[in-house]
Amino acid sequence: MANYHKPESKTIQELKDIATKLRIHSISATQASKSGHPTSCSSMAEIMSVLFFHTMRYKVSVPRDPSNDRFVLSKGHAAPILYAAWAEAGLFPATELLNLRKIDSDLEGHPTPRLNFVDVGTGSLGQGLSVSAGMAYVGKYFDKANYRVYCLIGDGEAAEGSIWEALHFASYYKLDNLCAIFDINRLGQSEPTSLQHNMEIYRRRLEAFGFNALVVDGHDVEELAKAFHEAQNTKGQPTAILAKTFKGKYFPNIEDLENWHGKPLGNKANEVIQHLTGMLKNPGPLGLHPQKPLIDDVPAVDLNNIKLASPPNYKLGEQVATRLAYGTALAKLAKNNNRVIALDGDTKNSTYAEKIKSVDPTRFIECFIAEQNVVGVAIGATCRDRTVAFVSAFATFFTRAFDQIRMGAISQTNVNFVGSHCGVSIGEDGPSQMGLEDIAMFRTIPGSTVFYPSDAVSAERAIELAANTKGICFVRTSRPATAVIYKNEEPFVIGKGKVVRSSSKDQILVIGAGVTLYEALKAADELSKVGVNVRVIDPFTIKPLDAQLIIKNAKEVGGRIVTVEDHYPEGGLGEAVTSAVALERNVVVKKLAVTEVPRSGPSNALLDKYGISTSKIVAAVQEVLKL
Amino acid sequence: MANYHKPESKTIQELKDIATKLRIHSISATQASKSGHPTSCSSMAEIMSVLFFHTMRYKVSVPRDPSNDRFVLSKGHAAPILYAAWAEAGLFPATELLNLRKIDSDLEGHPTPRLNFVDVGTGSLGQGLSVSAGMAYVGKYFDKANYRVYCLIGDGEAAEGSIWEALHFASYYKLDNLCAIFDINRLGQSEPTSLQHNMEIYRRRLEAFGFNALVVDGHDVEELAKAFHEAQNTKGQPTAILAKTFKGKYFPNIEDLENWHGKPLGNKANEVIQHLTGMLKNPGPLGLHPQKPLIDDVPAVDLNNIKLASPPNYKLGEQVATRLAYGTALAKLAKNNNRVIALDGDTKNSTYAEKIKSVDPTRFIECFIAEQNVVGVAIGATCRDRTVAFVSAFATFFTRAFDQIRMGAISQTNVNFVGSHCGVSIGEDGPSQMGLEDIAMFRTIPGSTVFYPSDAVSAERAIELAANTKGICFVRTSRPATAVIYKNEEPFVIGKGKVVRSSSKDQILVIGAGVTLYEALKAADELSKVGVNVRVIDPFTIKPLDAQLIIKNAKEVGGRIVTVEDHYPEGGLGEAVTSAVALERNVVVKKLAVTEVPRSGPSNALLDKYGISTSKIVAAVQEVLKL
Repeated sequence: MANYHKPESKTIQELKDIATKLRIHSISATQASKSGHPTSCSSMAEIMSVLFFHTMRYKVSVPRDPSNDRFVLSKGHAAPILYAAWAEAGLFPATELLNLRKIDSDLEGHPTPRLNFVDVGTGSLGQGLSVSAGMAYVGKYFDKANYRVYCLIGDGEAAEGSIWEALHFASYYKLDNLCAIFDINRLGQSEPTSLQHNMEIYRRRLEAFGFNALVVDGHDVEELAKAFHEAQNTKGQPTAILAKTFKGKYFPNIEDLENWHGKPLGNKANEVIQHLTGMLKNPGPLGLHPQKPLIDDVPAVDLNNIKLASPPNYKLGEQVATRLAYGTALAKLAKNNNRVIALDGDTKNSTYAEKIKSVDPTRFIECFIAEQNVVGVAIGATCRDRTVAFVSAFATFFTRAFDQIRMGAISQTNVNFVGSHCGVSIGEDGPSQMGLEDIAMFRTIPGSTVFYPSDAVSAERAIELAANTKGICFVRTSRPATAVIYKNEEPFVIGKGKVVRSSSKDQILVIGAGVTLYEALKAADELSKVGVNVRVIDPFTIKPLDAQLIIKNAKEVGGRIVTVEDHYPEGGLGEAVTSAVALERNVVVKKLAVTEVPRSGPSNALLDKYGISTSKIVAAVQEVLKL
Repeated sequence: MANYHKPESKTIQELKDIATKLRIHSISATQASKSGHPTSCSSMAEIMSVLFFHTMRYKVSVPRDPSNDRFVLSKGHAAPILYAAWAEAGLFPATELLNLRKIDSDLEGHPTPRLNFVDVGTGSLGQGLSVSAGMAYVGKYFDKANYRVYCLIGDGEAAEGSIWEALHFASYYKLDNLCAIFDINRLGQSEPTSLQHNMEIYRRRLEAFGFNALVVDGHDVEELAKAFHEAQNTKGQPTAILAKTFKGKYFPNIEDLENWHGKPLGNKANEVIQHLTGMLKNPGPLGLHPQKPLIDDVPAVDLNNIKLASPPNYKLGEQVATRLAYGTALAKLAKNNNRVIALDGDTKNSTYAEKIKSVDPTRFIECFIAEQNVVGVAIGATCRDRTVAFVSAFATFFTRAFDQIRMGAISQTNVNFVGSHCGVSIGEDGPSQMGLEDIAMFRTIPGSTVFYPSDAVSAERAIELAANTKGICFVRTSRPATAVIYKNEEPFVIGKGKVVRSSSKDQILVIGAGVTLYEALKAADELSKVGVNVRVIDPFTIKPLDAQLIIKNAKEVGGRIVTVEDHYPEGGLGEAVTSAVALERNVVVKKLAVTEVPRSGPSNALLDKYGISTSKIVAAVQEVLKL
C-alpha cells in the first residue's frame, strides 16, 4: 500500500493501552450512573483508540473547528466511550466521566450537541451515516477541504434501511472523504444479530453498494491503523471498515455472551476493572496525543442575514402556486448567498426546488427517492454552520423521515423543510399523496417554526424568514395556484397573523390558511349577502401562532371562531387555535377539517366532500351563530 | 430447468397482445382522467400480462380468496395498468377504466382496498415489499399453503431503504414463496435513476441480499414466463426478477425519453394508440384466461371475539409497569387464539413482546432493527384477515414508520401498535429514547384508537380491546412501574374515561394518564390539605376521548380543567381536551406538558424539571383557581 508505515511498537502498545483505559472508563462511568451500555463500548475500544490517537486530525481544544476531521457515533448508546475518548484526549478531566447521565451533566445517556464535541444527537439507530455523508458532501464539494468524516455504526443498526440509503448516496457521489466503520460485535439487544459474524455477507453487501470494503480484526490496533490508512488513500469511492469485534471484549465471563446489553457490570465490575488494569503496559501518562489538522483550509462562510436578491414581484390577484413561489424565493436566496443549498428526492420539478439550479446547479443535491437519507444529509450539511439547507418533498412524505426530523431537534439543527402538495386540494392523485398530518408532525418538534403561507408574496417571505431562523422550520406549500392577496412590500413576521377582512359589525372570526383562506373569503362574501359579517385571519405561522391577535379579534366578534384547514383535525391549525384560546372563557371554536381518508377527485369537489369548502364554512358559521 | 415447458407460440402471441391491450387501456384511461402515469404503466405491460394470464393462480371472481396468489403493486402510480389487468381478466368491464380518478369511482389515482382486488394502499414508494413479505411469511409459516406472493417494484423506489430492509427480512426467513419483480425502466420523475440500466449492480446487490436474482428482458414474455417458472421452483430463498424495461415502451417518440413522467399523452395519444393497435395480432377475444389455484389449502381462521385467557390478576396498589402488563395480556390472547401474533425489532425484552414466546415461540416474528419493515410486515400479515398482529417498539421509534402507519390507514389495516418507554419518565437514557410525540402521531391517523392505560388492569383490557377493534390501534405503555388502581373485574370501554377521584366540593378537574395520573392524584392529596378539592379523570382512551364525561365534570367544578401529560404540548392529551371542550363557553383548560427537548436524569427529577410533577400540578391548579 502506497506510503504506508507500520506504527512503531511503542505506538502500538500505547494504542492498546488507550483502548484498555477507555474500557475502564466506560465501566466506571456506567457503574456510577447505574445504567448504560459498557459491553457495547468495549467492542469498539480499539477503533476509538486508533481513530482518536492515531488516524484523525483535530484540535482537541476546539472540537468544532471547521478544519477538524469529524466523528459521528451512530450507535449513540456507546456514548460513555466517546466521552472517555475526549477525556483521554484532554478536553476535560476524566473524573467528569463519573457524572454520566446525571441531570446536571451534559454527559447524557446518548450524545447531544449540548456537548461541544458532538455535532448531532444520536441514539435513534441508523441515522449517523446519512449525517456523515452530508458532512462529507460539503467537505468535498462546497468546502473543498481536507477534513475527513468517520462514522461508527453498530451491526444491529446496519439492518436499518436508512444505512443502505446513505451507503448508496455516498458511493454515488464518490465521497472518498467518508469512512464508515461497522462495529460487528455479533450481539443485538435481545438476541444475536441476523448476520452475526458472517463477515463475507457484509463484505459482499458493502462492495455491491460501491464501497471499498475492508474486513479487519476490530481488536487489532495495527490492522485498524493500516485499514484507516488505506481508507485515506482510496480515491473515488468511500471506504467501509468491517470490524469483527466482540461485545464485552476483555470482560471475563461477559465477552461475547448474551443478556449483557444495556447493563452496567454491577458486582462484576471490580473484577473486570482489575483484569483490565492488569493488561496495561503503560499505566501512567502516554506519549501519544491527537494530531492537529495539517492545514486550516476551510473557507470562511457567512450565514447571517440572508436576503431575497429581489423583493416579491407579483400583481394583486395573479394566480401563483405557493410551491412555485418557494422555487422563486430559493433561487433569490441562493443568488445572494453561496451557502444556500437545496436537497430533494426526485420531486424537484413538482416542489420547484429545481429552480435553484438556474442560479447554480452545484447548489442542488439530488438525493433520489430516499427521504430519510435526504433529511440526514441535510442535517449533516448544515453542521458547524457550513450551509443553509432547504429540503423539499411532498409534505406527506416527510412522515417517512419523522424520526430523523425529531432527532434533528435534539441535534439543534437549522434545516428548513418545504412540503408541497398538502391536503385534498391536490385532487386526483388521491390520499397517498396528500399531506394531511404534516402540520401536526412539525408542530410537535420542540422549537420548530411552522409557516403556512397562503399566497406567493407571503410564501417568498416565509422562505426568507426560514433561512434566518434557528431551529427546524417547516413551510407548507400548496399545489393549486392561488390569488396574490398581499402587496409586494407587505412585511411578514414570525408569529404575526394578518386580519385580511374585517368590519366593525363582524359577528364571527374565520381562520383559514392556504386554499382554505380563499374558501373563507368566499364564504365571507356569501354571508355578507345575507347580512352576516365575517372577520377573516390569515395566521401566516401556525407555530408560533399569533394568539394575541386571535384572542383580541375573537373577543371583538362575540367569542366565535371557525377554523378551516386542509388537514386532519388532530394537531393542525384547529387545535393550535383551541390551544391558543384555552384559557379564555367565552370563546368557542368550531373546527372544520378532513375527518376521514379522502379519495381521488377534482380539487374543488374534494374540498366540498370533506367539509372545508365555501358552502361548508357558510353552514358552520350559521351553526355557531345559533349557539 | 426442472420441468419447464416453453409456452406454445399461440400463447406467446396472446401474452404479447394482452400487454399491448394493457398499454392501450392505460393510455385511454389517463386520457379520460387528464392525469396519471401511462409511461410508467407501459414499461411493465409484459410483466403484468405474463403474471396475470400465465403465472399467477387466482379466482378472478373472488379476488381476495385466501388461496389466491397475491399481487402487490408497490409502484402504485402505475395503477391504471393494474386496473386494466383485472378488467382484461374479466372482473369488470373495460369501459369502467375510463372512470379512472373520478370522484365516484374506486379506480383512484393510486390503488386502495376500496377495490376488492387490492389488499393494501400503495403510492408512497418503497412499501410494497415489506407488505408482501408479511403475506409470504404468513403463507409459509402460518397458513402453510401454496399461494405465492408477487410484488412489483419500480426502480426509482428501489432507492428507499425500506426495500432493503424487506429484502433482508425475506431472505433471512427464506421466503421462497415470494417473488420481487423490479421494473427497471431507467427513468425517475425528474431525471434518470441513479443506477439507470446498470443491471449488474442490481444483480450484485440482490444476490448480496440473499436473493436468487434473475436479469431478464422485461419486454420479452418468453423470458419472463421462464423466470417466473424458475422463481416457483427455487426453494430456500426468494427470487428477484430484475426486468430491464423502457419507460413508455412502444410509444413512438416517447419511449425512453425524459419529461414524460406522470403525464397523459395528450395530443399524441391517438397516434400512439393507433401504433399499438397495429401491433395486435389477435384484436378480438383471446383464448388465455387466468388459472385458478390448484387447491384451496388455506385453513379457516376465526379472528372474532378474541379474549384474555384469564382476567387481570393483580392486587390493588401492586407496582406493575403497563409495558409488562402488555406482555402478560399478549400471552393470554395468544393462548386463546392461534392467530394472534407479535412482531418487534430487537426490543422484545424491553417492550415485553417476548412473553408471547412462552405460549408459542412461532407466534413471534423477530424483525431486527428495521422499524419500517416491521410495520409493513405486520400490515401484510393481517391482510385478508389471516392474523391479528401486535407490533411493539419504544413509542418514539414508531416515528420511523409514520409513513407506513399513515399508509396503513389507507390500507384499512387492523394492526395494533404498542409503544413503550413514553415520555421523560424513562429517565437516564435521554431524549432520543423518549416518546413525546407518539400520541400526536397516532391521533392523526383516520379511524385510529389511542389507548393510554395507567395501570396494569386497564392495560390488559386495552390490549384485549385492541385485538377486537377495527382500524389502527395504538396502546401507549410506560417504563416505570405504577400502582394498580383498578379492581381486576373493572370493565373498560373504548371512549369511556373513569373519574378516579371526586367529591361534591371539587373546584377543578385534573386529567392525567400514565405516570401523570399518579402525579395528579398526589397533587389532589396535597391540595386537599389546603382545602382545595380536586376531581381527577383517567381518560383511558385519548382517541376517542370521552368528551361527554369531561364536559359534564368540568361544568360541575366551575369549568376549570388542568391537563398534564408526559408528551409535547402539541397534538397530545391536552389538545385532545381543548378540542373536546372547544364549543363550551365557560370552560378553561390549562395544559401542562414537556415544552423543550428534555435531558437525561432520574425519572422523578425530570417530571419536575419539565413541569409535569405533583408540585407543578399543585401550582397550576392554584393559578387556574385565581383566573
